[in-house]
Amino acid sequence: MSLSRSTIIAIIVTLWTARAWAQQSAPEATSTSSAIPAGTASPSPTPVIFSPQTLAELKRLQQAALRSDYAYKQVAHLANNIGPRLSGSSQAAKSIEYVASELKAIGCEVQLERVMVSHWVRGEETAELVQFPGQAENTTQKIVLCALGGSVPTPTEGIEAEVIAVRNFDELKSLPRNKVAGKIVLFNCPFDKQMAAEGRGGEAYGEAVVYRSKGPAAAARQGAVACLIRSVGGADYRLPHTGLTDYEGDAPKIPAGAVTAEDADLIADLVRQGPVKIKLVLTPQTLPDVESANVIGDIKGSEHPEQVIIVSGHLDSWDLGTGAIDDAAGVAVSMEAANLIQKLGLKPKRTIRVVAWMNEENGSAGSKQYAKDYGKENHFAAMETDGGAGHPLGLNIKGKAEVKKMLAPVAAILQQSGAGMLNLVEHCGADIEPLEKAGVPAFSPIQDSRFYFNYHHTAADTLDKIAPKELAENSAVIAVVAYALANMEQPLPR
Amino acid sequence: MSLSRSTIIAIIVTLWTARAWAQQSAPEATSTSSAIPAGTASPSPTPVIFSPQTLAELKRLQQAALRSDYAYKQVAHLANNIGPRLSGSSQAAKSIEYVASELKAIGCEVQLERVMVSHWVRGEETAELVQFPGQAENTTQKIVLCALGGSVPTPTEGIEAEVIAVRNFDELKSLPRNKVAGKIVLFNCPFDKQMAAEGRGGEAYGEAVVYRSKGPAAAARQGAVACLIRSVGGADYRLPHTGLTDYEGDAPKIPAGAVTAEDADLIADLVRQGPVKIKLVLTPQTLPDVESANVIGDIKGSEHPEQVIIVSGHLDSWDLGTGAIDDAAGVAVSMEAANLIQKLGLKPKRTIRVVAWMNEENGSAGSKQYAKDYGKENHFAAMETDGGAGHPLGLNIKGKAEVKKMLAPVAAILQQSGAGMLNLVEHCGADIEPLEKAGVPAFSPIQDSRFYFNYHHTAADTLDKIAPKELAENSAVIAVVAYALANMEQPLPR
Repeated sequence: MSLSRSTIIAIIVTLWTARAWAQQSAPEATSTSSAIPAGTASPSPTPVIFSPQTLAELKRLQQAALRSDYAYKQVAHLANNIGPRLSGSSQAAKSIEYVASELKAIGCEVQLERVMVSHWVRGEETAELVQFPGQAENTTQKIVLCALGGSVPTPTEGIEAEVIAVRNFDELKSLPRNKVAGKIVLFNCPFDKQMAAEGRGGEAYGEAVVYRSKGPAAAARQGAVACLIRSVGGADYRLPHTGLTDYEGDAPKIPAGAVTAEDADLIADLVRQGPVKIKLVLTPQTLPDVESANVIGDIKGSEHPEQVIIVSGHLDSWDLGTGAIDDAAGVAVSMEAANLIQKLGLKPKRTIRVVAWMNEENGSAGSKQYAKDYGKENHFAAMETDGGAGHPLGLNIKGKAEVKKMLAPVAAILQQSGAGMLNLVEHCGADIEPLEKAGVPAFSPIQDSRFYFNYHHTAADTLDKIAPKELAENSAVIAVVAYALANMEQPLPR
Repeated sequence: MSLSRSTIIAIIVTLWTARAWAQQSAPEATSTSSAIPAGTASPSPTPVIFSPQTLAELKRLQQAALRSDYAYKQVAHLANNIGPRLSGSSQAAKSIEYVASELKAIGCEVQLERVMVSHWVRGEETAELVQFPGQAENTTQKIVLCALGGSVPTPTEGIEAEVIAVRNFDELKSLPRNKVAGKIVLFNCPFDKQMAAEGRGGEAYGEAVVYRSKGPAAAARQGAVACLIRSVGGADYRLPHTGLTDYEGDAPKIPAGAVTAEDADLIADLVRQGPVKIKLVLTPQTLPDVESANVIGDIKGSEHPEQVIIVSGHLDSWDLGTGAIDDAAGVAVSMEAANLIQKLGLKPKRTIRVVAWMNEENGSAGSKQYAKDYGKENHFAAMETDGGAGHPLGLNIKGKAEVKKMLAPVAAILQQSGAGMLNLVEHCGADIEPLEKAGVPAFSPIQDSRFYFNYHHTAADTLDKIAPKELAENSAVIAVVAYALANMEQPLPR
């Protein structure tokens, strides 16, 4: 999951809505017959939205998804056998090849959509406190950190400078330039763990991630030589969280890293006591752009092949972990939807298009390229799963309020695995944002996010963080919704 | 906390007992008068154990401890300003100087007891999978690990070998020598997190830590060239746990490391699929022994100065974290006991001796030296706190059953902060083990250990893991028990 402002706002909205929902009752089970009103003498008969056959097929899909381990096997292969898949890497290339081959095996029509992506490579990353109050002779204190994605390097021998710690942008701005110039700025804005524990992880993330995206530029504008942020996430296991930083045109590019929550506390404590100097070595490289691809696999519609429903996740990941929850899971549940539709011999009336996006994490080149190449196609709807593999509570909808009403029979089916919520939101996924902006109705699963931001963008984003049962529950939501959209008897209002 | 067999057994016993206790009711509050029976016409009057004055002083001490932040400040200084304090390091030396100076400031008679300690220094430690099923071209997978304490190094360029994964000693023994010779053995014995969550962390630790202590020697006996263990602890944040390994005389010394739980899972998964080769680089050094010291600070007894009560923790720590919970906390609560006794102007009848032990983690040279130098002194009792800073539930007693009865009035006071349990156990602390073996009654706080083994021996053993309130609760137990022992009107049975 990347950091685009609209994504963050959408997460906040989603989570707030989810919270509000949790205080309401579950939706009433809608019987098949209620979706297909009998031909009474009503003045304007409600149009049929889902045929009895479709509803029966949705239930079959759901049950098959809840029993299947196909998605889990896909995540396991992507995370364990291929590993981290940062854009431009050999692993990213291998994952494209793998997913394309799997989608062909399922029976999809597969294309690789060429896209040039950035190629940033992590280097050495070390930091130590070389001067601080109470220091033992000839010793330093190790600081655990990682470079932020896109960071420029320090000189090979590093930067040694005094550190100043601020809580927020206002505190930095209140300092005269000569207090900041030549220093390393630490933004020590804590991630609100309590908020995350209440299921409002996206909101907590949104509050803190602005320092990752905008902090280095802000520090540079006041003359800082490097910038550190407190890791954006809930782990208290000395675990740094990476993610893209957003250098801005008007500010010099300075090296930027994320220290762990513990190290931020340590530095801030020592800075309160007296001068603290850090030696910082970050040697990442930005290499020339690399040719890469979105993987696109179609199951052509039997009645309206020109109408496309996208089901997607992003194939690239950050490089510290193996990208299991972010976002092999999203790719895998999308593949599972296609797999089960084929396996059960179902015939979607519209085209179901699995997309494994490239470069979501550090550039979104894949989704931008898709908008260029395919933006004029007839997209009936677009879905993306990019919030991990936690238990799904239901479906986010970026679209008209009527869409929610129309999907009530689908929600009733999803409620069988506790996923019956339907929430109207502002945004459903970074990669489908260009489509959203073009007015395409968009969808994403509402997922339990309480633990997601403990692992997000860290070395601990690994296969074991996925409960196979919960992944299958996500697959069920994606497969059911994708097929429901493909076989609706009515168009979605825009 | 180190790994001695008796320690482990004691932890298991303690935790089991604690668990059993939790199903019983809290001890009844014992009023002051119950401890000093009225002179009724009983045939053999119960002897007075605690005077009313002593009991009143214990309550003052308790209240002062619960309000004091002195112990927390000590932990903060040791962890943040001095940092990791592995035996032989400059930080260990600095911490000795610091604690001695603090104890002098309190008004203790301070000695430094000279002891030679081992000096093992961590070096480079990296590992990567260089061959595995499904591998992308020209890529490796990074394995997160740390060297085990005392490990011999690999050659500078590392060892590259096939890895075999076993769950336990029996599985290794079942393999013919030619399946093991020349390989790297991974012991993939999981730490039982459920057991730890139930408060039985010590038991879970005991089950798994044998692979850390005995695994490398066992693998070497079958011809392995290096040994990896699954980290012994409950973290699922890609966090390696170090700790001493115990090379045995009959086995070659081979390089030994602990991979994270996630990496153990990854390797085991890939090994099931096909051959996996690891490149392992560990370059620790064992340097010549270094002169170091136990810090001893006495508050001389007013009536029986020759009778000594030890209150202690260990000053050395592992090198990955800053040793806040293991065991700056134990040293700090011991210092707090002395601090409060002095500050409140209390006069212990027996000598209260604060000891900050050196080298508990990798050799126990400090406690062995103490036994040599002071073993013949009259030790009335010995306490050690080495289980973190979690909420104390009461007191472990290694001693006669009568001791438990005698301390009932003290337990009634401790119960004011939920620490009223009294448990008879087999062992109370690694550093006081020589005294225990000599028959000295021993004590340690019973602590909430549910989270201790998530952080134990890791980089995440840092100040933030200590809740100031819980640390103060531990101080209260230590101060009250120490002073109670010092002012008992009766000897402790042996």
